[in-house]
Amino acid sequence: MIIVLRANASDGDIRRIEDILQGVGLSAHVSRGVERTIIGAIGDERKLLPDLFEGLPIVEKVLRVLSPYKLVSRDFQKEDTVINVNGKKIGGKTIVLFAGPCSVEGKEMMVEIGKSVAGSGAAFLRGGAFKPRTSPYAFQGLREEGLKFLAETRELTGLPVATELMDSRDIDLVARYADIIQIGARNMQNFRLLTEVGKLGKPVILKRGMSATIQELLMSAEYIASEGNLEIILCERGIRTFETATRNTFDISAFPVLKSLTHLPVIADPSHAAGNVSLVEPLAAAAIAAGADGLMIEVHNCPEKALSDGPQSLRPEAFEGMIARLQKVAEAMGRTL
Amino acid sequence: MIIVLRANASDGDIRRIEDILQGVGLSAHVSRGVERTIIGAIGDERKLLPDLFEGLPIVEKVLRVLSPYKLVSRDFQKEDTVINVNGKKIGGKTIVLFAGPCSVEGKEMMVEIGKSVAGSGAAFLRGGAFKPRTSPYAFQGLREEGLKFLAETRELTGLPVATELMDSRDIDLVARYADIIQIGARNMQNFRLLTEVGKLGKPVILKRGMSATIQELLMSAEYIASEGNLEIILCERGIRTFETATRNTFDISAFPVLKSLTHLPVIADPSHAAGNVSLVEPLAAAAIAAGADGLMIEVHNCPEKALSDGPQSLRPEAFEGMIARLQKVAEAMGRTL
Amino acid sequence: MIIVLRANASDGDIRRIEDILQGVGLSAHVSRGVERTIIGAIGDERKLLPDLFEGLPIVEKVLRVLSPYKLVSRDFQKEDTVINVNGKKIGGKTIVLFAGPCSVEGKEMMVEIGKSVAGSGAAFLRGGAFKPRTSPYAFQGLREEGLKFLAETRELTGLPVATELMDSRDIDLVARYADIIQIGARNMQNFRLLTEVGKLGKPVILKRGMSATIQELLMSAEYIASEGNLEIILCERGIRTFETATRNTFDISAFPVLKSLTHLPVIADPSHAAGNVSLVEPLAAAAIAAGADGLMIEVHNCPEKALSDGPQSLRPEAFEGMIARLQKVAEAMGRTL
Amino acid sequence: MIIVLRANASDGDIRRIEDILQGVGLSAHVSRGVERTIIGAIGDERKLLPDLFEGLPIVEKVLRVLSPYKLVSRDFQKEDTVINVNGKKIGGKTIVLFAGPCSVEGKEMMVEIGKSVAGSGAAFLRGGAFKPRTSPYAFQGLREEGLKFLAETRELTGLPVATELMDSRDIDLVARYADIIQIGARNMQNFRLLTEVGKLGKPVILKRGMSATIQELLMSAEYIASEGNLEIILCERGIRTFETATRNTFDISAFPVLKSLTHLPVIADPSHAAGNVSLVEPLAAAAIAAGADGLMIEVHNCPEKALSDGPQSLRPEAFEGMIARLQKVAEAMGRTL
Repeated sequence: MIIVLRANASDGDIRRIEDILQGVGLSAHVSRGVERTIIGAIGDERKLLPDLFEGLPIVEKVLRVLSPYKLVSRDFQKEDTVINVNGKKIGGKTIVLFAGPCSVEGKEMMVEIGKSVAGSGAAFLRGGAFKPRTSPYAFQGLREEGLKFLAETRELTGLPVATELMDSRDIDLVARYADIIQIGARNMQNFRLLTEVGKLGKPVILKRGMSATIQELLMSAEYIASEGNLEIILCERGIRTFETATRNTFDISAFPVLKSLTHLPVIADPSHAAGNVSLVEPLAAAAIAAGADGLMIEVHNCPEKALSDGPQSLRPEAFEGMIARLQKVAEAMGRTL
Repeated sequence: MIIVLRANASDGDIRRIEDILQGVGLSAHVSRGVERTIIGAIGDERKLLPDLFEGLPIVEKVLRVLSPYKLVSRDFQKEDTVINVNGKKIGGKTIVLFAGPCSVEGKEMMVEIGKSVAGSGAAFLRGGAFKPRTSPYAFQGLREEGLKFLAETRELTGLPVATELMDSRDIDLVARYADIIQIGARNMQNFRLLTEVGKLGKPVILKRGMSATIQELLMSAEYIASEGNLEIILCERGIRTFETATRNTFDISAFPVLKSLTHLPVIADPSHAAGNVSLVEPLAAAAIAAGADGLMIEVHNCPEKALSDGPQSLRPEAFEGMIARLQKVAEAMGRTL
Repeated sequence: MIIVLRANASDGDIRRIEDILQGVGLSAHVSRGVERTIIGAIGDERKLLPDLFEGLPIVEKVLRVLSPYKLVSRDFQKEDTVINVNGKKIGGKTIVLFAGPCSVEGKEMMVEIGKSVAGSGAAFLRGGAFKPRTSPYAFQGLREEGLKFLAETRELTGLPVATELMDSRDIDLVARYADIIQIGARNMQNFRLLTEVGKLGKPVILKRGMSATIQELLMSAEYIASEGNLEIILCERGIRTFETATRNTFDISAFPVLKSLTHLPVIADPSHAAGNVSLVEPLAAAAIAAGADGLMIEVHNCPEKALSDGPQSLRPEAFEGMIARLQKVAEAMGRTL
Repeated sequence: MIIVLRANASDGDIRRIEDILQGVGLSAHVSRGVERTIIGAIGDERKLLPDLFEGLPIVEKVLRVLSPYKLVSRDFQKEDTVINVNGKKIGGKTIVLFAGPCSVEGKEMMVEIGKSVAGSGAAFLRGGAFKPRTSPYAFQGLREEGLKFLAETRELTGLPVATELMDSRDIDLVARYADIIQIGARNMQNFRLLTEVGKLGKPVILKRGMSATIQELLMSAEYIASEGNLEIILCERGIRTFETATRNTFDISAFPVLKSLTHLPVIADPSHAAGNVSLVEPLAAAAIAAGADGLMIEVHNCPEKALSDGPQSLRPEAFEGMIARLQKVAEAMGRTL
């Protein structure tokens, strides 16, 4: 860690910082320049509390040399993590497809959509049984009944199931039915939930929070990893910006940036980023071109009647047509879909 | 709700929208203009699913006429909500002070800080026993032991205690010790937690999420209110923007805007917004001038050794000096501190 | 325009709004609902001043039915605008390449880079003779000398020249040398400059401001168009958000959104969005996949010694390799590069 | 400057960076740690090009030790700059008031408003003769005629005039009539205009761009200062964020942050930040409480008929009432208004 002091720092100020560093076992290298004094902390800076120096009146700037995450970083593991779920690999040469409705609304619709997306090439089934809704008056999900419908659809289609966990009290219930646990954008910094999911030992999809930085996403992944679970799939789904023409701004740079910082697979959720069905395909194509390892696409057999997110859901026939076109983009990138 | 269709909307498109509206008991008023057709939905638009029309390819724009929240709106209740906690009123003419350390770190420090802030005019004690930390390797709070220290400090000082609840599994535990339950910024959209807290029937401080709009804050308050609990204190603590000179951008406009939209009290947390001790006083003064009903200030007897948020914590003597100056601003606004 | 009044609007308030509308030749259609009164303005709402009603205390919300731009909208012209510059078409099936250094630094480097990028398939030469720099102490461009070097390189390579105009006083000078005038991101709302460029009758590249909405970009294009010049090429180059892992956030959704709203061609500048050479290729590939009509790429023969933007500049050989790979993506999209 | 290299940096990489540093007269201090190599550049880092190292593939992070601005920094001048305009002081103990309409619309209205605000305590008259408008179809200002009306109002009221300069071609014209030149938010990075205004030697109000960081605002001030003009008044007027409840987010922290970084006076424009008349007073009060040296307030004698920004303009009688209340806040801060 490099600490730049303000111009008026006294010898006493410098000693106080040296004392703090020595208190946690680091040593201090002080260089007094003409305009500023700079202190380099030598040793494992991860022992230092976050923000410890940033707010001290005498400190002007702080630079952390090391990333605050470790297990999920490329420095820790050079080769890509490939996650195997019932024989299907996430993070390899094949770009994987998660497809299904936003919410599980009934058995028949799940089975119909499940069969359809399986036929179009989806590798995994998605569908929410617990739904985070901004309004307390909106449909909140079928809960255990929804989980059962997902499991029944898995029986009929062979597609492993990814579904969201919202509350630590439901962890055993959701784990009983799901092959992959999804942590939603709003829970990306629900640290207790991350810890619990880390202990569970099932693959986890961790969605980036709407206003989370890439570093914060990786810190949340580190929470899961620090409990011994490295089967983590990161998911970019759009960030909040000033632009209102789209629901969120799909951060396409996140794919190459994340692939350079971490060994974990990174998938895209263009449906939530766009909030509009006409944008799903261009964003999906762009994600593949930028290096995404998978896509999560909302598909509904009757979007107008969907209980959530209808407007951004593709009909099964539109999904099938899109996949055919996206395959060409995947091939152009030297991958398969 | 007003729905503006794209220029190429057909009669069939219009009929389909009329059908959807009628399906939930609303009627449609269609006006065909020279350039656009506009459909007005007549009836209670809150029955409509959020985003139902926004993403339909044929729909250009949607305007919701009514706010999506109801119980917490000024329309629902004209007069200010005043919350009485052990005889202390929040939301009235007196601006209330919550003070204490970021984290409860031990009994002695809690008692020392508690006595000191009580002497300087604080009305409530704050302190975290469960801490949301971005790093899994950082101090996570003393948990039940911390809650006990808070309760013991309450005994000695008479100050009611506000403390954070992070996980629905801890609700009974936290409720046993706390007078006011705090929901942190990262949990503002943890909807299951909001529902549980709504059922509890204790006053709640609801902090605005770092990237939550004012409308989303009110929707989260509606979650609590819809369970029958209207004792909600909203708290502005800074939003995430492009500016990096401060940790967050304190949204000073939130005070007058919220006071016009809701009857609930609104307090300020300048310590978290600033992330730097030198900004706490100017932001606190500004909050009072903009209409805040209270302040939440981090105070620590030894900021350099604090296990969290030291840099933004005031020493007790600095807190006392600040209160004296802020009292003049409160008086200028016709209030007391 | 639809105007929603607050719950407490009186008959006098309604009459006052009717009067304002009638004053500019619009008529008012008033509907009094149970909870709100809504006024529809019938006629050409573009006659109304921007923000006229938004801030009236009695007005709760305003919805503009029509876009505030006209000539540049898809409603005005259904088919794509294709701009012909010396026989090269922008906006057609072929994705065009603009390549060259950030700044013109000398004759030799311009000629060397120009020949190289021409050989790799660039259709246009880029290079700045006037440079907007955040620091007054940084290199500000070679000005007329730089323009001459660009023209000499055009002679040798046959590549038409695109270069930036920063100040209305230089318009004749720049127009004498340039085939395409570039308006930089920082000047996107320099309305006097836009007006002058509109009168000039040369093709214009209009870069999106770092914090401009898509609607504001189109309004700035309308400034140029309203002077009779519809040869406008829009350019997405990244927007400012909270994320600091990249210099700007490349708004990939801007391509499909703009292509639906306007008939103008839209190109991408991945070099400026990324600020880092390793991100240029993934962002360029993503832009093609999302529907971009062209790419603007910074190429320098000696990036370490570049006087500006070295770190994001590709070496000529890296540029050539990238183009070969991007061609496959273009083909997957049914286009050529 | 501190340069942190990636883990895989070779000896050759290190030498290349040393060479670049030596090329501009700096020396390099290399420390090879267990996990990273760090290079400290010793000497005047302002000689280094901006972003020179940031994008090199082998560089992980760069920390500039010194601020990129110099003349406007507190390090350069400890005591506050106080600007004297016709005997009125900006930046001293008295908080100054700029008041007047958004646009000059005619002589009578200017005189009426000017007399009124002079009577209420305004020290300066504001009013735009050249107006930056997002729509080419909106009122663009009365230009020289407007400047004359401003000068005539100055004759009658004694109030010095502040008015906006939008284009370098108008500089002599505007300078002939104005006492203070205003650079608008959209021109904050119109570097040619800043240079010209720097040469002029008249006091300048420099408004912060809608998405400009505090550092960028200071860099733009440095442009003016580097031409020898240090009579610069900085103006916070709201920044662009995700929040849509207000037109812009008034960055209240900018006042204490700027006052610590620069010796220049800082004023507030609550009218533009808010976009709504009901927010002007709370934001003005907050600005005073946070340390603003002045207020710029839009006042119009007939806001409904204003040709621009009517909704955020106060009527003269409302202005007078507000000033009386704000005086109490100024007194609470130990200042006068």
